Amino acid sequence: MARTVDVPALVAQAREGRPRAVARLVSLVEDAHPALREVMAALAPHGGRAHVIGLTGSPGVGKSTTTSALVTAFRARGQRVGVLAVDPSSPFSGGALLGDRIRMQDHALDPGVYIRSMATRGHLGGLSWAAPQALRVLDAAGCDVVLVETVGVGQSEVEVAAMADTTVVLLAPGMGDGIQAAKAGILEVGDVFVVNKADRDGADATVRDLRTMLSLDGGRAPGDWRPSVERTVASRGEGLDDLLAALDKHREWLGEDGRLRARRVRRAADEVEAIAVTALRERIGDLRAGERGSALEALAGRVVDGGTDPYAAADELVAAVTT
Amino acid sequence: MARTVDVPALVAQAREGRPRAVARLVSLVEDAHPALREVMAALAPHGGRAHVIGLTGSPGVGKSTTTSALVTAFRARGQRVGVLAVDPSSPFSGGALLGDRIRMQDHALDPGVYIRSMATRGHLGGLSWAAPQALRVLDAAGCDVVLVETVGVGQSEVEVAAMADTTVVLLAPGMGDGIQAAKAGILEVGDVFVVNKADRDGADATVRDLRTMLSLDGGRAPGDWRPSVERTVASRGEGLDDLLAALDKHREWLGEDGRLRARRVRRAADEVEAIAVTALRERIGDLRAGERGSALEALAGRVVDGGTDPYAAADELVAAVTT
Repeated sequence: MARTVDVPALVAQAREGRPRAVARLVSLVEDAHPALREVMAALAPHGGRAHVIGLTGSPGVGKSTTTSALVTAFRARGQRVGVLAVDPSSPFSGGALLGDRIRMQDHALDPGVYIRSMATRGHLGGLSWAAPQALRVLDAAGCDVVLVETVGVGQSEVEVAAMADTTVVLLAPGMGDGIQAAKAGILEVGDVFVVNKADRDGADATVRDLRTMLSLDGGRAPGDWRPSVERTVASRGEGLDDLLAALDKHREWLGEDGRLRARRVRRAADEVEAIAVTALRERIGDLRAGERGSALEALAGRVVDGGTDPYAAADELVAAVTT
Repeated sequence: MARTVDVPALVAQAREGRPRAVARLVSLVEDAHPALREVMAALAPHGGRAHVIGLTGSPGVGKSTTTSALVTAFRARGQRVGVLAVDPSSPFSGGALLGDRIRMQDHALDPGVYIRSMATRGHLGGLSWAAPQALRVLDAAGCDVVLVETVGVGQSEVEVAAMADTTVVLLAPGMGDGIQAAKAGILEVGDVFVVNKADRDGADATVRDLRTMLSLDGGRAPGDWRPSVERTVASRGEGLDDLLAALDKHREWLGEDGRLRARRVRRAADEVEAIAVTALRERIGDLRAGERGSALEALAGRVVDGGTDPYAAADELVAAVTT
């Protein structure tokens, strides 16, 4: 039996900014606890305030350092910040441990900062299914900004972009970085580009390459957002003001003409669709659970005996789960 | 508009052994032609006769050569043979071309042999969704044996095993082959193991390693099939009689105690389930097609506005497609 959870009390405490309540709610999400649906229902009226900023980029470009510097900058403005660090390569998750993310410890004692790392539990090369739900917890808990940081491994950039209001793509100086960016398809998803470690050799070339490629990107119409390219040395806090200004500008642009809402509606539609498909799949799975003598088994037997074909049998199966 | 197809006539011709009719039916399957369902319904009463033999193994072990040698051997017995060559790495498919499968040309003019290559059309690392349906065509066309040959790339071995009555795993002498087999999980799926190129150095060691690992495999109960290890030099036809005997023996074992039927029912259940899930997913997709103002969009809007949560919205979506 699952432990009983007082969801209304937990949500009330989280909204008061109690870190333990926030942590407990995220754990319920991660564990797909039976109370998950009640949690989501209780959070629903309290979301939509936070500016969700996704950060992505290859290993070594300084994502954690940049995230930490952004936390400092947002805190200096008095804003509450949530950090969701998603590691698609790690099977470990949950809790307060952020592995070698040493710099994050600067914020470990700050009650205005929630930090949470999540693994992807074998979800193919991308964000955990639980990440959008964890985002809702941090949002409802009163974060003004939620930073979603992920290691850039192919698909995950695109998934970060699908979750975020604003997507930041980080690069570091080095041969072919720009070309790699183009290959990985991140030119399309980035709202703000950051060349971090801009004190290193090759930074100018990387910035120039990136600007050229962005200006060549023919998919933009007048009125579309034009991504900016910022230079930072996150470890020393250099360039952070400009980066913050770029993020604010994008947030402002989103606020015009209902763009933010349209983006979020698209995102919610994806999420609702994924949950619905999973639910339907589970219904079919339930039909199978009885093993021999089950409805699906009987249908399959008729296919094998030539009494029906797989498509007609699938129609019957669909009818069985939908009526 | 799709071209009208006279399905009953095609199926009748295919059952008379007319190669063009067989080829046309497989093409309809591959193209997911609107007549696909009618084709499947027409084939249903005529299936279940063929012994489906899957062949898998790493590139270079001699799969095509072995397949060709088996075709010769089955033809010498007067049996009709179908060959389905599935190449998960190739985006090309269909038609009579088998690329560099030169040896297959030995059989190109034999009316008792149908050869067909299929690609996987981007299906993740495995067999085409169309392969089981193509199998039904060859089966209904009166093939006594259907050989399904696939390049062994991870997942595909397991998928071949899921399609086949008898799964043949091929290896060639070489350091670590046995260990690779164990790693790839093919010890579990193989009913008959073949060490091909058995005239080469190291063949004895490979056979010995394989036998040892198979005897250590603790998952078998008394009465379970005990996989045999055969040695062949397929290019010279050596060892083919023993391999054929092993295949016959497995087919015979399957025929006892309803094993064959149980295997095929499990296979059909997987197939029916996959078709049903796809159909349900398409229904949800249809709901989305209307873009703005569509049902899903409206639901997503309520999620964004805090009027409902994603799970409750998904319930509504499921209800919308199931009633």
